[in-house]
Amino acid sequence: MTVSHRARNAETFHALDFAQRAADLEAQGHHVVKLSIGEPDFGAPPAVLAAGRDALDGRPLPYTPPLGLPELRSALSDFYRDRHGVQVPAERIAITMGASAALLLATAATTDPGDEVILADPSYPCNRELVQSFGGTVVALPTTAATRYQLDADMVERAWGDRTTSVMIASPSNPTGTSIPFDELAAICELARSRGGWRIVDEIYLELSDASPAHTVLEVDPDAIVTGSFSKYFGMTGWRLGWAVLPPQLVGPVERLAMNYFLSASNPTQQAALACFTPETLEVCERRRRELGARRRLVLEGLARIGLPVPVVPDGAFYVYIDVSGTGLGAWQFCEQALDVAHVALTPGRDFGPTTGETHVRLSYAASRGELNEGLSRLGHFLASRRG
Amino acid sequence: MTVSHRARNAETFHALDFAQRAADLEAQGHHVVKLSIGEPDFGAPPAVLAAGRDALDGRPLPYTPPLGLPELRSALSDFYRDRHGVQVPAERIAITMGASAALLLATAATTDPGDEVILADPSYPCNRELVQSFGGTVVALPTTAATRYQLDADMVERAWGDRTTSVMIASPSNPTGTSIPFDELAAICELARSRGGWRIVDEIYLELSDASPAHTVLEVDPDAIVTGSFSKYFGMTGWRLGWAVLPPQLVGPVERLAMNYFLSASNPTQQAALACFTPETLEVCERRRRELGARRRLVLEGLARIGLPVPVVPDGAFYVYIDVSGTGLGAWQFCEQALDVAHVALTPGRDFGPTTGETHVRLSYAASRGELNEGLSRLGHFLASRRG
Ligand SMILES: Cc1ncc(COP(=O)(O)O)c(C=O)c1O
Ligand SMILES: Cc1ncc(COP(=O)(O)O)c(C=O)c1O
Repeated sequence: MTVSHRARNAETFHALDFAQRAADLEAQGHHVVKLSIGEPDFGAPPAVLAAGRDALDGRPLPYTPPLGLPELRSALSDFYRDRHGVQVPAERIAITMGASAALLLATAATTDPGDEVILADPSYPCNRELVQSFGGTVVALPTTAATRYQLDADMVERAWGDRTTSVMIASPSNPTGTSIPFDELAAICELARSRGGWRIVDEIYLELSDASPAHTVLEVDPDAIVTGSFSKYFGMTGWRLGWAVLPPQLVGPVERLAMNYFLSASNPTQQAALACFTPETLEVCERRRRELGARRRLVLEGLARIGLPVPVVPDGAFYVYIDVSGTGLGAWQFCEQALDVAHVALTPGRDFGPTTGETHVRLSYAASRGELNEGLSRLGHFLASRRG
Repeated sequence: MTVSHRARNAETFHALDFAQRAADLEAQGHHVVKLSIGEPDFGAPPAVLAAGRDALDGRPLPYTPPLGLPELRSALSDFYRDRHGVQVPAERIAITMGASAALLLATAATTDPGDEVILADPSYPCNRELVQSFGGTVVALPTTAATRYQLDADMVERAWGDRTTSVMIASPSNPTGTSIPFDELAAICELARSRGGWRIVDEIYLELSDASPAHTVLEVDPDAIVTGSFSKYFGMTGWRLGWAVLPPQLVGPVERLAMNYFLSASNPTQQAALACFTPETLEVCERRRRELGARRRLVLEGLARIGLPVPVVPDGAFYVYIDVSGTGLGAWQFCEQALDVAHVALTPGRDFGPTTGETHVRLSYAASRGELNEGLSRLGHFLASRRG
């Protein structure tokens, strides 16, 4: 019995290891400040919880159509129109089990063995595994603070080869919280399109941008593949619901893959998610977005105070990507000591690619202000004691 | 932009087409008897609904660990011990978004490009797409009523080649509702193991067998990969929760794939599913199993009366696989006319493979007795009018 190459080579998330070590410390009675995992502490808005409970009243909950409940696809279509001013017919929206499944379907539908897919290093780790799982080759382009750790059109043009079929972008990005400048995003998409390549743009953090409304790539590239999620802005990480906006020629292929891989996304969760798009719920979510902005300011000030530089100030999501090379510790060591000594859980850059893997750590500021202040103070003492 | 080969070649479920056409007829004001989709009409047991509502009380619902909530993995381990007398450590159980995701992960973890996977024709269509999606080659062996449309060890031995890496079996099977004789299953697994091949055994319908408890393959092959689901026995199709039992060497690889592909299964649904394993809920489910047995008898008698032979009497699940070749109609035509003329929705054999694709249709008897009687009577009139 041989384990497949893809499974043998698949990488674990070090974020989870550190979260596990944090849980172990807590089990020993320590209080750990957990800033390693990308989950808002808000939870789903009240109306979503209520709608979720209502859906469990005994009504039939069969498989939904493979691309989702028509009402939810329509609600998303309306949301794109109302908030972003773009026309996305409901028929082009696929409801999926998280943006995760949307990215899986997008990759499966566009990647043949040997195809090359361009993405940024650092970036969200799952995309690399997905591309490789379907036989593609990842072309991870090293980025720096100069481009906000994002691709730019020049880089993409230089890297584009005969076998390149897609470029994958996340904006705002995980682990950096930085968006790609909109004209640069447009230029990359235009370039990829002119070469006959797919543009897979992960906008899971779009609604958690400083700009509100932020610009969706669909404004300039209506045929981009866009992924979104109820996880972050709507506070529904554990519910597993997301979506993909598809260009017309992908709707049928993705529908066929979705039915064979998944049958459908969760019916009661889709019903609950319908409550996301009321004015009340959107107001709750906007308040949370502003709260995350305040937390970011708190964290940036605190990090400056204790001498931990954030090379690029984020403009969305809930991450800061810290350069720890000035501390004399490698990123991994830094995370280990921050956890063991200061009881603060962070994520080493290694999860996001080699370019910044040994120098940077990710801090998720989706925790309460109290926890953030405590974490900063602990990190400050830890650094002072190292210096002193 | 090129759609991937896997997506272009992926097949649709004709079951869904017929379900859609049935919905269209209903929208026109007709009453359609829907026997095309494999979903019990019972829904989740009351205690599961209540636990699901409780989980939505505002408590945190973060991503769960990639292989699921420890409590649920333990509850399943206990269930295997109590009902089936097999020891399956909780650490070897992966909670997934339906058996669908379990099958996807199992295939991804065991199939490299060029590997051959043996399965039966007819069988559950998704497995073929999964194998092909990960670069494998499907070796679909034609089966007949003589082996209850299941593989036997001789067939598998003859088909086993240098590149064969797995055999996939579903018992009881979709579309036939037939189980593989247990000694034959043991013999196939023994053969595959002796050749260094994986045994992927889909037991999603195991608890809906006439025998109670039915025999799980784990009794004779503790290192088989077994998939299961909350969809059928527990009436939770639309909730999307299932599991895989993994041999020790696959736990780490599947965990790494699961985190990259899915992050986790639904947190509130996993909490709700904990209520599946109480004596009350199991008693509800056993009553339903017996009710499905009564429905099967009703359907078999009715089909005999109207002259539609069921070549192999099922012993589980909720399907009968009908040979319609005596009617003078091909299976596709039969389904079209049954729907258009008699307003009964069935599924043509084509979904399940070419061997029986043009001669057989699947009837799902997971509908109420009233609907089943009505459906049989309509089919009877339809056939009588054709003869007359
Ligand atoms: C950039 C990015 N994309 C996709 C996802 C997947 O999220 P989900 O599957 O919960 O929608 C995440 C989760 O952290 C992410 O950071
Ligand atoms: C044989 C078989 N396996 C797996 C599945 C997938 O079920 P689920 O993903 O709902 O658990 C089905 C659904 O009909 C099935 O018939």
